[in-house]
Amino acid sequence: MADMLPTGATIGILGGGQLGRMLSVAAARLGFKAHIFEPGTNPPAGQVADRVTTAAYDDENALKAFAESVDVITYEFENIPTQALDLLEAHRPIRPGREALRVSQDRLTEKTFLRGLGLKTAPFADITDLNSLQAAIDEIGTPAILKTRRFGYDGKGQARLRTPDDAEAALGDMAGAPSILEGFVEFSHEVSVIAARGLDGQVACFDPGENVHRDGILHTTTIPARLSPAQRTDAVLLAANILNALDYVGVMGVELFVTPEGLIVNEIAPRVHNSGHWTQNGCAVDQFEQHIRAVTGWPLGDGQRHSDVVMENLIGHDMDRVPELARERDIALHLYGKTDVKVGRKMGHFNRIVR
Amino acid sequence: MADMLPTGATIGILGGGQLGRMLSVAAARLGFKAHIFEPGTNPPAGQVADRVTTAAYDDENALKAFAESVDVITYEFENIPTQALDLLEAHRPIRPGREALRVSQDRLTEKTFLRGLGLKTAPFADITDLNSLQAAIDEIGTPAILKTRRFGYDGKGQARLRTPDDAEAALGDMAGAPSILEGFVEFSHEVSVIAARGLDGQVACFDPGENVHRDGILHTTTIPARLSPAQRTDAVLLAANILNALDYVGVMGVELFVTPEGLIVNEIAPRVHNSGHWTQNGCAVDQFEQHIRAVTGWPLGDGQRHSDVVMENLIGHDMDRVPELARERDIALHLYGKTDVKVGRKMGHFNRIVR
Repeated sequence: MADMLPTGATIGILGGGQLGRMLSVAAARLGFKAHIFEPGTNPPAGQVADRVTTAAYDDENALKAFAESVDVITYEFENIPTQALDLLEAHRPIRPGREALRVSQDRLTEKTFLRGLGLKTAPFADITDLNSLQAAIDEIGTPAILKTRRFGYDGKGQARLRTPDDAEAALGDMAGAPSILEGFVEFSHEVSVIAARGLDGQVACFDPGENVHRDGILHTTTIPARLSPAQRTDAVLLAANILNALDYVGVMGVELFVTPEGLIVNEIAPRVHNSGHWTQNGCAVDQFEQHIRAVTGWPLGDGQRHSDVVMENLIGHDMDRVPELARERDIALHLYGKTDVKVGRKMGHFNRIVR
Repeated sequence: MADMLPTGATIGILGGGQLGRMLSVAAARLGFKAHIFEPGTNPPAGQVADRVTTAAYDDENALKAFAESVDVITYEFENIPTQALDLLEAHRPIRPGREALRVSQDRLTEKTFLRGLGLKTAPFADITDLNSLQAAIDEIGTPAILKTRRFGYDGKGQARLRTPDDAEAALGDMAGAPSILEGFVEFSHEVSVIAARGLDGQVACFDPGENVHRDGILHTTTIPARLSPAQRTDAVLLAANILNALDYVGVMGVELFVTPEGLIVNEIAPRVHNSGHWTQNGCAVDQFEQHIRAVTGWPLGDGQRHSDVVMENLIGHDMDRVPELARERDIALHLYGKTDVKVGRKMGHFNRIVR
């Protein structure tokens, strides 16, 4: 692999949250240094990174100095301002590349892209005003869900429409942001595929996990997911399709609804994903190292698991459970070093190894 | 556990090598911050630690400031100067405690202590000059090995005596340092027990691993070791005995020779140990986290393994193998971020998960 970034090189990571933190640790495991760029002070990733730049995404000098200090740039979240990306990309490669960000930053673009690949999605419509919303309701029906096209995650920027009468209030919740109406899909359960594609085009997928959400936030991921052999093959091929179409380099989370009519793509995330945290204790090469391997041009791990795992998130005051969890066998704790416990805040997770 | 140090607290680690590095990562996994004290510049542990103090062990101001910035102090090596320990201990608890350091810093004290517990060791004698060396050779015979009492590791500070004629040259190699003559033991293989004892006296041992050395440096550790059920029980009880006798808190490496007459203690190390690196990919709680749990008053992991593992060290130019190893399945690489490749230098290791 002529393009393998040598051990000792520096990975620039945009975002200093828990994903950046676990990416930093994975980078270190391969002998790389991590440099975090993060506007907020005392980011969780900073505790395990070689270097931290605290600056805003419109601080051009800081961005330039950051780019010049690293060998490759990656990120832990998809909503990075376009101008920052333009500036960074002038100095160092950004992986995964801009096309993946362009597609996944906007729900409408994303769903249109997925349909273009021949994949199934929930019914959707572009919403610009009350008229277009009412027309969309006529077509899609209710219940449905109105979402901002950009900057949504973990259930934020969403409003549910139980009946057509909810249209006006839901639109008000969007506060004028361009939006998309999504119809509900009847599904038995949700699974996700954590897929990776290397710089040389090699694709490797981890075994699909089955996700359960609570209050719009991922609660557990269970491996293996309940899938028929045919569904399992479909899930992996579909994910590989998406990565190839984007000439993707890195790890991507692909969320799928399982329905009697087949798999429906819920959404894609061009980064390591909460539903892939189980790989830390189920695989020789976890999703974080897999991502680092991809963006540094290393060969990928094969994604095979050595153990079945149930991952569970610790949200807000779930942290009170830590002393008790620490006493249980076969549990691997992963805490994020966040000092302020807040309702709905992801504070850590644990992987229960099933023997 | 009333004494559990809360997540967010800071662990002070003396020594910034690969053991300090892997301790830092384990501390972060439980939400702790790591502060490294290390005289050398750019220590490997610094790349993943929240904070690094670069200062000598006789810099009293630096030691005091370090101690006051942390909640508990631990270490990655046993040869810490006594005066530094005295100063640090005046401010914060040092775990494992001073008695374990006193015993393990000196081969003569260590062997005398082990004999005092009724454990078997190689025959040994205190050597102060050529007369005492010749008397010891008369008693123990040759081949034998002369070792400095203090500051030896990985085969350094040792001279082999093939015949009594080698006495004078071997003594010269010690350069006047107090020494110990050790007789050879006929053993079939070496195993080690990575044992841990919590602040509340709870003891947990990982499964014994079988060690193979090359050029005086650990080459591989294979789990499980070749041991009869009775030997396995002996090994674990013997290790627990040592930890209890020292009122030990933390992880200890106990190296044992397997002989037809039973287990003989080779040496003990009051710290995480190279022969315990396999636990990173074999157990839910590895030796590094186990050590952090012990010194912070957390409950210990139970030490049970979910997978069989073969650990292999990457020494010096073994680093050239990394691109090839990265392509192999079931291999977890752990590189230490050291920039200078030197003959005999530990650069990394890998764990091969056996399925």
